[in-house]
Amino acid sequence: MPEVILGEGKSVAQLRGIVRALRARGVGALVSRPTRAQRRALASPAGGNLRLRTLAEGRLLQLPGPWGGSFRRGTVAVLAAGTSDVAVAEEARAVLVALGIRVEGAYDVGVAGLHRLMRALRRLERHHPEIYLVFAGREGALPTVVAGLVPAPVIGIPTSVGYGRGGGGRAALTAMLQSCAPIAVFNIDAAVPAALFAAQHLARSPRRSSGGRRRSPPRRR
Amino acid sequence: MPEVILGEGKSVAQLRGIVRALRARGVGALVSRPTRAQRRALASPAGGNLRLRTLAEGRLLQLPGPWGGSFRRGTVAVLAAGTSDVAVAEEARAVLVALGIRVEGAYDVGVAGLHRLMRALRRLERHHPEIYLVFAGREGALPTVVAGLVPAPVIGIPTSVGYGRGGGGRAALTAMLQSCAPIAVFNIDAAVPAALFAAQHLARSPRRSSGGRRRSPPRRR
Amino acid sequence: MPEVILGEGKSVAQLRGIVRALRARGVGALVSRPTRAQRRALASPAGGNLRLRTLAEGRLLQLPGPWGGSFRRGTVAVLAAGTSDVAVAEEARAVLVALGIRVEGAYDVGVAGLHRLMRALRRLERHHPEIYLVFAGREGALPTVVAGLVPAPVIGIPTSVGYGRGGGGRAALTAMLQSCAPIAVFNIDAAVPAALFAAQHLARSPRRSSGGRRRSPPRRR
Amino acid sequence: MPEVILGEGKSVAQLRGIVRALRARGVGALVSRPTRAQRRALASPAGGNLRLRTLAEGRLLQLPGPWGGSFRRGTVAVLAAGTSDVAVAEEARAVLVALGIRVEGAYDVGVAGLHRLMRALRRLERHHPEIYLVFAGREGALPTVVAGLVPAPVIGIPTSVGYGRGGGGRAALTAMLQSCAPIAVFNIDAAVPAALFAAQHLARSPRRSSGGRRRSPPRRR
Amino acid sequence: MPEVILGEGKSVAQLRGIVRALRARGVGALVSRPTRAQRRALASPAGGNLRLRTLAEGRLLQLPGPWGGSFRRGTVAVLAAGTSDVAVAEEARAVLVALGIRVEGAYDVGVAGLHRLMRALRRLERHHPEIYLVFAGREGALPTVVAGLVPAPVIGIPTSVGYGRGGGGRAALTAMLQSCAPIAVFNIDAAVPAALFAAQHLARSPRRSSGGRRRSPPRRR
Amino acid sequence: MPEVILGEGKSVAQLRGIVRALRARGVGALVSRPTRAQRRALASPAGGNLRLRTLAEGRLLQLPGPWGGSFRRGTVAVLAAGTSDVAVAEEARAVLVALGIRVEGAYDVGVAGLHRLMRALRRLERHHPEIYLVFAGREGALPTVVAGLVPAPVIGIPTSVGYGRGGGGRAALTAMLQSCAPIAVFNIDAAVPAALFAAQHLARSPRRSSGGRRRSPPRRR
Amino acid sequence: MPEVILGEGKSVAQLRGIVRALRARGVGALVSRPTRAQRRALASPAGGNLRLRTLAEGRLLQLPGPWGGSFRRGTVAVLAAGTSDVAVAEEARAVLVALGIRVEGAYDVGVAGLHRLMRALRRLERHHPEIYLVFAGREGALPTVVAGLVPAPVIGIPTSVGYGRGGGGRAALTAMLQSCAPIAVFNIDAAVPAALFAAQHLARSPRRSSGGRRRSPPRRR
Amino acid sequence: MPEVILGEGKSVAQLRGIVRALRARGVGALVSRPTRAQRRALASPAGGNLRLRTLAEGRLLQLPGPWGGSFRRGTVAVLAAGTSDVAVAEEARAVLVALGIRVEGAYDVGVAGLHRLMRALRRLERHHPEIYLVFAGREGALPTVVAGLVPAPVIGIPTSVGYGRGGGGRAALTAMLQSCAPIAVFNIDAAVPAALFAAQHLARSPRRSSGGRRRSPPRRR
Repeated sequence: MPEVILGEGKSVAQLRGIVRALRARGVGALVSRPTRAQRRALASPAGGNLRLRTLAEGRLLQLPGPWGGSFRRGTVAVLAAGTSDVAVAEEARAVLVALGIRVEGAYDVGVAGLHRLMRALRRLERHHPEIYLVFAGREGALPTVVAGLVPAPVIGIPTSVGYGRGGGGRAALTAMLQSCAPIAVFNIDAAVPAALFAAQHLARSPRRSSGGRRRSPPRRR
Repeated sequence: MPEVILGEGKSVAQLRGIVRALRARGVGALVSRPTRAQRRALASPAGGNLRLRTLAEGRLLQLPGPWGGSFRRGTVAVLAAGTSDVAVAEEARAVLVALGIRVEGAYDVGVAGLHRLMRALRRLERHHPEIYLVFAGREGALPTVVAGLVPAPVIGIPTSVGYGRGGGGRAALTAMLQSCAPIAVFNIDAAVPAALFAAQHLARSPRRSSGGRRRSPPRRR
Repeated sequence: MPEVILGEGKSVAQLRGIVRALRARGVGALVSRPTRAQRRALASPAGGNLRLRTLAEGRLLQLPGPWGGSFRRGTVAVLAAGTSDVAVAEEARAVLVALGIRVEGAYDVGVAGLHRLMRALRRLERHHPEIYLVFAGREGALPTVVAGLVPAPVIGIPTSVGYGRGGGGRAALTAMLQSCAPIAVFNIDAAVPAALFAAQHLARSPRRSSGGRRRSPPRRR
Repeated sequence: MPEVILGEGKSVAQLRGIVRALRARGVGALVSRPTRAQRRALASPAGGNLRLRTLAEGRLLQLPGPWGGSFRRGTVAVLAAGTSDVAVAEEARAVLVALGIRVEGAYDVGVAGLHRLMRALRRLERHHPEIYLVFAGREGALPTVVAGLVPAPVIGIPTSVGYGRGGGGRAALTAMLQSCAPIAVFNIDAAVPAALFAAQHLARSPRRSSGGRRRSPPRRR
Repeated sequence: MPEVILGEGKSVAQLRGIVRALRARGVGALVSRPTRAQRRALASPAGGNLRLRTLAEGRLLQLPGPWGGSFRRGTVAVLAAGTSDVAVAEEARAVLVALGIRVEGAYDVGVAGLHRLMRALRRLERHHPEIYLVFAGREGALPTVVAGLVPAPVIGIPTSVGYGRGGGGRAALTAMLQSCAPIAVFNIDAAVPAALFAAQHLARSPRRSSGGRRRSPPRRR
Repeated sequence: MPEVILGEGKSVAQLRGIVRALRARGVGALVSRPTRAQRRALASPAGGNLRLRTLAEGRLLQLPGPWGGSFRRGTVAVLAAGTSDVAVAEEARAVLVALGIRVEGAYDVGVAGLHRLMRALRRLERHHPEIYLVFAGREGALPTVVAGLVPAPVIGIPTSVGYGRGGGGRAALTAMLQSCAPIAVFNIDAAVPAALFAAQHLARSPRRSSGGRRRSPPRRR
Repeated sequence: MPEVILGEGKSVAQLRGIVRALRARGVGALVSRPTRAQRRALASPAGGNLRLRTLAEGRLLQLPGPWGGSFRRGTVAVLAAGTSDVAVAEEARAVLVALGIRVEGAYDVGVAGLHRLMRALRRLERHHPEIYLVFAGREGALPTVVAGLVPAPVIGIPTSVGYGRGGGGRAALTAMLQSCAPIAVFNIDAAVPAALFAAQHLARSPRRSSGGRRRSPPRRR
Repeated sequence: MPEVILGEGKSVAQLRGIVRALRARGVGALVSRPTRAQRRALASPAGGNLRLRTLAEGRLLQLPGPWGGSFRRGTVAVLAAGTSDVAVAEEARAVLVALGIRVEGAYDVGVAGLHRLMRALRRLERHHPEIYLVFAGREGALPTVVAGLVPAPVIGIPTSVGYGRGGGGRAALTAMLQSCAPIAVFNIDAAVPAALFAAQHLARSPRRSSGGRRRSPPRRR
């Protein structure tokens, strides 16, 4: 499982130090929410950089390397209610793809246009997704509606979309916590931990994995 | 339009005084959210009562009498997401029926069971509702979904259902304010003002009403 | 009814894609809350633009085209409590005018100067408004006071005006939800959905509309 | 000025001890928000009581005795928006009357019935009130409207009336803090400190008072 | 998967009607958070009851019957930080056991006594749990610490334990949403939906299930 | 009494229009919280300005002219707890001085240095202030402590000072509302309305003012 | 150091089990916030009790026995702002006395009566307290004022006193967190952990304690 | 003890005045949270500066000079959960070092990596710290876990790290207030007051200090 480092809140020097140490250990890692300065320093040639790969339009940086874990075959479905939720959903997709997991997506399928949503779900169901990651801002109703239509577990991730009272994802978060379907919830815009959780869902069951050392769980710092 | 008196927060003596004054003026009125003591005093024979009629299982008391307004013919649709929302929805229905307005209802049509909702909407649409009053607690998604499926205006009324963070209707209220459909919102459990607003929607347009004195709008005190 | 696209939160590329698709379908649409970059790209010649029309001093962009709906004749009244609320109120007016609905406005009629408000209401009443859209920031009292003086339904829209506790429209929103008059409420600065709701109030009643395909309700994405 | 003791939160024994000590010092005092047990113990014969006088239907107890201060002649106006606000307003009136200050009241004059309010203000203005104490729950608009109509300073006191979001006086408090008129605000249901402040407004100006020892200000404990 | 009915907020008559309908359909169901009156009416002989089985010391009622789903073999670990969290954790265990899923529990293993926690985890790991349900009130740190020590996915469920600021589970909920480990979160005391989610984690993967009709997901109403 | 216009939230064009109208009417006015652009347009020669006078280091602009009201002789005391509160306190002082009212100030007299506060109060008391305006951020304790030491009424104005939980004046506001002394409270940084209220306290009592037309109260828009 | 068990939220059976286990281990313990039923079962002869000692008027139960720790000689000062804060302060005193630590108290010394506070502090200073535990509800100013007058560290503990906005200790907590003096803060009514912290302050410094096994810190469960 | 001046919120001129006055009195002081402009004016040669020393990468400025207090020998342990918390923790360390107190630190020891934390604690324990200052953002669990492993008192300081609900240190603060260990809490990012409190813990006990004048406590302004 990849080590994930939150860029936001760290100085360029701190982040560079962490990445160098990880490279020295020879392991793969992801930097989430890098600032512009961090991206310049770590992913661009101009910055004397460390040649990290840029994913999800710059919302993630990847230090290539082995993760260690292995996964059951299977698909993760990623849905986004509106166009504004796409950027966050793409973070999750990038993490999963980096881990070698197959992703099927459906964007712009909000609950105010149910027929489109249903068409999209029919398409997705052909891939028999093992788990659904559903991103929605504003009123955050999409994961609840999806959970009523699909047989697999559903994760709701609120996005920081919307203005006024409950804006910035606050209404969506609370609505998902109140869902009348049994959906699991992550914090606002928390695409990366949600993707890691989905990966754990697909990880080979510990019982069946051939012993050896315990895989430690994904970690963010 | 009826005068509406909020029972909660008034002493029995205060409420009795108000009702007597209204009776003396010979006008109809509604008492909303009467306490048990108020109901005993105003609606039961035992309490030397004023013979108010009990509506909506005691959540409303009616002082019969003329309201004055007149309405276009037309139907109001009342939907409730879950069984727990029914009692609040019934308050709205009782107000509308007392005003002589036709109501069609559909209860237990939450968004986690979309197929049932759609069946209910097909039935309701046969009555060509002029406006929809949609009650929902928890994640409060129902009015948004309904607004995506029907051509008439939709009012969302959150109900004080649900526990934990956002419980008691708080998540539902905020979600409705954030709706990606243009729904109008009332406060938690505010069935009576929502019903009065729906009645105003059906009131004969002021332009066409044959002059005379201005009808004053519904009022609560 | 117009499709409404929230500009805020979308990249210029995303928004351009949506507008092009709508133009291809030949339908009218509105872009609300466009960012400066979006306005440049979509409405100015310099940006190789799509020639959208700028409304309400740039707070709305219009993709001209047919909407489909039709409306009863009738006037919508738009009131703003203070000078600072005017910009938001003008968004609503622009939407309604774009839909071909007649609007009468009265600005700077806050409750601290009641005599002015009453003079304005007397003037507006001559047009027999079918519905009132009332914008107010700070303490948000105007819709409640208006609802006590006019016979038509009243919509309250809080504006993000005011500093300190309850500033940014929060006090106004909560006060409107607590109103002792039966006013319907929209979120802070939500002029566009409120205008769409008012348009629905004026839409020809579904019963009387000569069948054909169901008009779908206004939608924002 | 009277010593004011908050009953709520003290044991009967604690309160009895405080009252006995004050009686021994021979000064007047008020007990606000006494519990039922405290009232029984201090104001009823059955409880071997201390013979405090019951004011405002039991919301205040008075230990008769001299206060020390003296006041300019003048009237305090006390307004209450709804019937449910009366009990709190009566607390303020009782405090002022106990201090020998003249009070003129007008109850049930909410902003949804402006004509009644204006009639009441015309009556009150004949007494040239020096200051207005205005009680309102729900949307709390009354003090703002009053401040636009009278020449004297206005104090707003929210009352714990109303249900749903912003209920219990929270919307009213925030709305008063956001008022577009310069009103001074007290906490929810804080009738007693508001009355003491009004009394201070009427206290003989310190400059003109013939020296001697400093009058200490009213104090609650 | 079982139908789950929230008892709280429904009248005895409503709940009895729902249970009778389910029994007529011959399916299994669970009633969560039954009130005392509901328990008497539905689970005790005295109430002319429907002979529901009482689980988790009365926090759940079970209508026996087939669920339909089938599960991979595997264990769910249930941890509770303190003695006060046990009752909520037992709800989850009861649901899982009713579904025929194996559960291993460890209670009173809060983070202030790490050595005990580690001993418990060593014991649990022998059963190779597929997923961990971790209940904690107060500061809600336990799921984060557990996620750092075990290889399987971790669900955090805050419990309504603790007084003062952040009490009643509010601090725990927010802390879990902020966790630096990728844990999925449910609302305060939401043991039943968390258990259903865990069951879905163990459900036979849809791909491998031999076609037929789509299993609909668990639903609460 | 002066008309007060809130600059913040108005366009330069709107503000210029208002000021020109007021100048045409020949009355004095104040602009509070002008933005930098507004100051340039209205108070600097470069902007083709309207020659407003700059007060309180640019936090107020004054349109000179007659106010109409007249005041009892008397002093207003203005206190500020810390250096950071001074700028807000100076706004109040500027308003009062503009109205011709005498002000005595004492700054940097926070409750953590009581001896300095007491020395300052002894100095101020020599001027027999009629009313105290007390500005404090952070924990907001100063008005409570002052009210325990002086005989005149005390107004508390929280300032937007302090970081972390309760920062920006929120803790100070709530603490003042909870004060165990009868202090009147204004919103965070609301120096101007507090100063207007203090001026009203000093206004010649309406009873004694020689009739004529009613002075209307101060108004902000 | 004593084990402390929070009574609230545990069943009588659970609590009895914990107490028996502790008794079997022969160690001392405290039960905080016992419910009435717990007190009856554990501390009264009628309940076949375990003979715990009742402290602080029933807010604490003590299981006598050795604690293990040892303390420097020294006094802890306990202050309470108002009579309503005394019960909480007495909890802290009871814990300290049970640990064999000397306590000096001063009650009813709120900041609105500074002279009394100063007299009390002069008396307390004669005992050279090593640390001050200061309890205050409402505006919570007392710890800040005390910290400005004494040389030792000050702990602020808000109490759940006061009504309206910020009531129940919320204003006091936030004010203490915003204090302009370096006071350490505990949660509302958290007298027991504050007392344990004070005891740790007086514990013999680990360096000087003659080795052996590590004393584990106080713990609540 | 040092005087501490909060830079944030003061003008450069105000701050320069305060520093000059302190220099004239010949005492040492610290400026916390200086703005960039303040740093330039007070600590850089370019600004005609006052030659303050820059500490903690510019988060503190030091006016060298005697503090007056004296301390027991002893070590303060400073822990930071993540790399992002280091800058705040370094503020505390700088204050303590400036006071001549020995500090041992351990950074990047979050609870998701317990083994690293335990290794760090074993190293720190060799220095027998008298008190622990523990900095953590996000879920804020570290101080609780540390308090379960060390014998000395523990102070929790939340840091403004983390996004979404509870971000910016809000979850960490509330979690620390709810801790099941008796930890004392400071406001978000309040490293300086926490360090001053730790210094007071190490100050020579007042009893043993050889009389003379009372040391006044640390103060911030």
